[in-house]
Amino acid sequence: MPKWLKEIGPDSDVVISSRIRLARNLEATPFPQSLKEPQGREIISRVYDAVIEGNSSLKNDFSLIEINSLNRLEKMNYVENNLISPDLLKHSDIGALLVNNDEALSIMINEEDHIRIQCMLPGLQLSEGWDMANRIDDLIEERIKYAYNERLGYLTSCPTNVGTGIRASVMLHLPVLNMTGYMSNVIKIAGQIGLAVRGIHGEGTEFTGNIYQISNQITLGMTEEEIIKNLQDVVRQIVQQERALRENLYVERPVELEDRIFRSYGLLKNARLITSNEAMKLISDLKLGVNLKLIADINLQQLNELMIMIQAGYIQKQFGGEIGEHERDKKRAELIRRSI
Amino acid sequence: MPKWLKEIGPDSDVVISSRIRLARNLEATPFPQSLKEPQGREIISRVYDAVIEGNSSLKNDFSLIEINSLNRLEKMNYVENNLISPDLLKHSDIGALLVNNDEALSIMINEEDHIRIQCMLPGLQLSEGWDMANRIDDLIEERIKYAYNERLGYLTSCPTNVGTGIRASVMLHLPVLNMTGYMSNVIKIAGQIGLAVRGIHGEGTEFTGNIYQISNQITLGMTEEEIIKNLQDVVRQIVQQERALRENLYVERPVELEDRIFRSYGLLKNARLITSNEAMKLISDLKLGVNLKLIADINLQQLNELMIMIQAGYIQKQFGGEIGEHERDKKRAELIRRSI
Repeated sequence: MPKWLKEIGPDSDVVISSRIRLARNLEATPFPQSLKEPQGREIISRVYDAVIEGNSSLKNDFSLIEINSLNRLEKMNYVENNLISPDLLKHSDIGALLVNNDEALSIMINEEDHIRIQCMLPGLQLSEGWDMANRIDDLIEERIKYAYNERLGYLTSCPTNVGTGIRASVMLHLPVLNMTGYMSNVIKIAGQIGLAVRGIHGEGTEFTGNIYQISNQITLGMTEEEIIKNLQDVVRQIVQQERALRENLYVERPVELEDRIFRSYGLLKNARLITSNEAMKLISDLKLGVNLKLIADINLQQLNELMIMIQAGYIQKQFGGEIGEHERDKKRAELIRRSI
Repeated sequence: MPKWLKEIGPDSDVVISSRIRLARNLEATPFPQSLKEPQGREIISRVYDAVIEGNSSLKNDFSLIEINSLNRLEKMNYVENNLISPDLLKHSDIGALLVNNDEALSIMINEEDHIRIQCMLPGLQLSEGWDMANRIDDLIEERIKYAYNERLGYLTSCPTNVGTGIRASVMLHLPVLNMTGYMSNVIKIAGQIGLAVRGIHGEGTEFTGNIYQISNQITLGMTEEEIIKNLQDVVRQIVQQERALRENLYVERPVELEDRIFRSYGLLKNARLITSNEAMKLISDLKLGVNLKLIADINLQQLNELMIMIQAGYIQKQFGGEIGEHERDKKRAELIRRSI
């Protein structure tokens, strides 16, 4: 389990994780989608060398994983952990992942860009994530010349990343903003101030389990620090709003809220068949119950972990092999009953 | 709690209770709906004397309850226990109930007819019920002359009861006949052979909790024994069908069935607000779970009792006074959590 799942960070009642991602490319080298295999493999070893040779203490901390060496289930697990993107799987022959032991830091090689440095931490820790990603970026830049334009900044495969190449994002659990209908307003306002709101698995996915990813859309014309501060300020406001609504709801309709939370608890503890969608909804209720101190024998970290462990890839990994949907629903229910 | 709820009888996996009811009227006396109060009160004391004086051993066994002496909640409880009918409440000033200690035998006085002898026993015990009701009938007849016509038999207020005046009925729990859709066919066939199928609270009520009351419609042209045998034969067939379908379903779709049963268990154990309708449905699933030995820490008798204890009258009695619907739903959920 990656660091963002194993630990609980600041503001964890609302913020599940913070992520910084930097997009970088090698100078005078075709972008990955136009790369031949030998060139792609050369980039893998150049990035690997840059990280390892740049700082020998990192040698034991980082592992190189070539996408081609993974089986289908392993690939799914990495995607479910948010360590690799589905896009990286499209370039399996030249794609690789460099990841540190606690899986807080990772570098995707030959995804959409040659290099995507990612730092993912539990709770609201955007600045901390930026510091860590920035250090790795500096390390690589000592040995690799990035594609950089004085006027535009870092050049990237997709124009939306040009400039700082930074994507800062936070994963939020917002059950009561959603329940009370205010969330559509939050999404609208976020869009107006240059932030994007997505579901747990990125663009186009639904807001399963009341989980929302909020990230900057603008990468140009602002410094990294400004981008992070902007996102952080908005997130802090959303966190305050969600907290106030939770308390308010619990004061105004305590029995209805308890009823909802305990029913979800009862279903999770007793179901024999459950889809991941239903499980996400019920776990979301349970998280709210833990936040409101209605449920004491489970903690948030367990529930964050459970939200990942019930995904199709994990279920199949834990039960040793690919299985059909009905069997997955059964195994998922078993796993949940054992966990809570 | 009446005997039919406190004990478990034969075929209790399907049959909750058996009931025999005999309608009788006094000769040359207006039917209750045309009775003046003094006449009504005289009938009460005549019936009481006939039972008590006929057999002195019954003196300590029977209690006389005048409907006017009951408060609203007590009246509801007696109706929920099936000891009195809602109709008896309409003639409160002249209505009374004579009931024995274990509440297996009861006599409603001045309901639709002057005398309605009722015997209600747990499980399939129609003949036993008939024997008990018949003995009380004989006892009363020693001192009271019934309205009787040589050609028609016993005369009753409503023509559908003329003849034997007997209504034999059984309360059945038929979750799988209902689930598989066969129940509509059973109801159709029952109608064709002169049996009526009703919900738990009599005519016009829904089949809440998969509970069906089946009774004879014909009271004329057959002996009591024939009527009882006819009903009993049909009930035995229905019981066999329900049992076969339960086993079949469990063999064919074990996980789906377990899922349904355990989800209901989880909801009952955790809900903080619950309507009686929902509770009845969930308890029905639980009964099926007990029948299939999936749930071991509860027994059928507890669940039969629970089906009565969650009714509005009981809830209010236990929590000391009349309360609104929302408060009842809350108290009901509390009571269920304490019980299972």
